[in-house]
Amino acid sequence: MSTTISQEQLSPALLLAQVVDATAAAAKENRAIARIGYEAVTTLVTGTTTEVTIRTGGHQFTIDEPPILAGTNLGASPVEHLLASLGSCQVITYQVWAAKLGIELESVEVAVTGDLDVHGFFGLDPEVRPGFQSIGVKVRLNGPETNERYAALTKAVDEHCPVLDVLTVGVPVRSVFSYNES
Amino acid sequence: MSTTISQEQLSPALLLAQVVDATAAAAKENRAIARIGYEAVTTLVTGTTTEVTIRTGGHQFTIDEPPILAGTNLGASPVEHLLASLGSCQVITYQVWAAKLGIELESVEVAVTGDLDVHGFFGLDPEVRPGFQSIGVKVRLNGPETNERYAALTKAVDEHCPVLDVLTVGVPVRSVFSYNES
Repeated sequence: MSTTISQEQLSPALLLAQVVDATAAAAKENRAIARIGYEAVTTLVTGTTTEVTIRTGGHQFTIDEPPILAGTNLGASPVEHLLASLGSCQVITYQVWAAKLGIELESVEVAVTGDLDVHGFFGLDPEVRPGFQSIGVKVRLNGPETNERYAALTKAVDEHCPVLDVLTVGVPVRSVFSYNES
Repeated sequence: MSTTISQEQLSPALLLAQVVDATAAAAKENRAIARIGYEAVTTLVTGTTTEVTIRTGGHQFTIDEPPILAGTNLGASPVEHLLASLGSCQVITYQVWAAKLGIELESVEVAVTGDLDVHGFFGLDPEVRPGFQSIGVKVRLNGPETNERYAALTKAVDEHCPVLDVLTVGVPVRSVFSYNES
């Protein structure tokens, strides 16, 4: 007897759980597809305006600085994209791990703040780092489960969130440069 | 005698240099305006689709996952935004520091790659970190200066690029959680 269930019969949460399980199973089965190489290419337009092309998925967007940092505000700034990257990674990791653990979630909101002192960027004070001094994350979950279940979900999320891992631990960055080469 | 120069008389590079100098001078003068608090709020739409609002500058965009990671590809993914953040930060730091050092630049392109093994994200292997194993940066500069001048610029950029600093060194992240609170 066939047990095929059409997607229309599933709630969005159950459907996501199915897709997540299938994706994790495929990644487990085939080590090669589990390794993903991402690429983003940024070119200068003019001033502080840049155009980013994501080679992996084809998306394009503009990143700029606000006028107080010599920019024209045609897009969010690099450090704002960094905070957005963390916030969205947390939200998606909540969705995926809730689906994996069978925990129901009605809403997820993650506010990420970062404190930066531009004395570092402008080289005005060697004691001040150029990057964020610290980052704050505020997570708000709503749904029908107990606080204990949501606390277990939070623990799983913070152990598996890719961007949180990169930002807290750091990552090896290797740079190469070419000057006037075609 | 007035020495006012109208903006129309300046090349874009000289104009940027003026604005950068004025911005750095203002930040030096007034410690309070040098400290910038950024904020990005991410909410769940459905599935892996998220909507980001940058409180600082008002920009909004969609971040999603591709179908191979259970998403609907309505925007670039969180880790792609992380790479875009680094690439655009490098490009803008090149522009600003070239202006500060009086080094002429005709074009800047920065390609950023990141290797990720989703066995970490899905919790399939505790030895595999959830985040990027490594990040590669390829910088291509063109312009009329010597390679030595561009190498000096590269050194200044990598010492002052905010996102490069955060990714290589890491940053303290403090999280707070609320479950079913209004």
